[in-house]
Amino acid sequence: MERKTEPGKFYYFYPQAVALIGVRSNIMPAAWHTPLSADPPLYGIVISPKRYTYELLLKETGFTANFLDLEHAAIAAKTGSCSGKDIRKLDEFGIPHSPAETVNGPILDDAYAVYECERVDVREYGDHMLVVGRITLLHYRKDHAEAGQIVDEHVSKPTLYFGKDRYLTIDPKTLQILTGK
Amino acid sequence: MERKTEPGKFYYFYPQAVALIGVRSNIMPAAWHTPLSADPPLYGIVISPKRYTYELLLKETGFTANFLDLEHAAIAAKTGSCSGKDIRKLDEFGIPHSPAETVNGPILDDAYAVYECERVDVREYGDHMLVVGRITLLHYRKDHAEAGQIVDEHVSKPTLYFGKDRYLTIDPKTLQILTGK
Repeated sequence: MERKTEPGKFYYFYPQAVALIGVRSNIMPAAWHTPLSADPPLYGIVISPKRYTYELLLKETGFTANFLDLEHAAIAAKTGSCSGKDIRKLDEFGIPHSPAETVNGPILDDAYAVYECERVDVREYGDHMLVVGRITLLHYRKDHAEAGQIVDEHVSKPTLYFGKDRYLTIDPKTLQILTGK
Repeated sequence: MERKTEPGKFYYFYPQAVALIGVRSNIMPAAWHTPLSADPPLYGIVISPKRYTYELLLKETGFTANFLDLEHAAIAAKTGSCSGKDIRKLDEFGIPHSPAETVNGPILDDAYAVYECERVDVREYGDHMLVVGRITLLHYRKDHAEAGQIVDEHVSKPTLYFGKDRYLTIDPKTLQILTGK
């Protein structure tokens, strides 16, 4: 294998499902995020403090995280290439949505799953901020997800970010069930 | 959409690339992890404090994070279904590896990319711990990855965890390049 002591970019962890982060009437795509705890249900998103969305995150008590199929990947690309400082993205791009119930953010009509999250922690790591939310309300499509999981790899086509403006999804034919026993 | 105020499991963020976390002569698969900063290069892994690996993480100054193609998914399944307290997984399962250079952990021969990480922070979030590492050395296969990215979706078949013992990979035919412009 090759070796590099000055890592520079190190984006070998991709692909990563895209989460569209909503605050007020703004959304932005995030590919850096992770669950942090099962009980209580905590979700962390990683965002540059230079982003307009970060300003909004600090002003509001929470945010939404929307997961969409690959057919809607253009929403991620479009909303990631401009700032909510300059345009009202949801209106400009005609993205259908309704208000969340427990936080001030949008629920995208085309999402197969959405977390409503109350902000419980913000912490600086290097050039990004980890914003931690407690999931206060879950929305999900029954044909895609149930019992807390995406259930059918033939139905769900999660939008995965692969780096360098590339998006793709899963190949259901490659599914293996491995218990390790 | 369906709604749930008691979220319970909320694993709609899957699929997630599996990172095999190595400390000393032990490895375990992690599906909860995220980059936290580009510069400095920081990577966070999320792990239950009940895990033997967590004990080792606190005793050592760092760890390795190994990314493998789907053909090696059985390594994740096998090493995730037993504890390093009971068996020496690398020996028991005959997993070829060599020692990392900057930390005390294994570099798996079959990985297409490996981070060596120096532990710089540990923080409790609910029932899990966020262990943050600064990437001190990168290993990557030139046919898979270069310029900090996975470069060829036809060559790389990242092992993605899909919940409930299910593993799959990407479909290169679905790749879209979307700049949003």
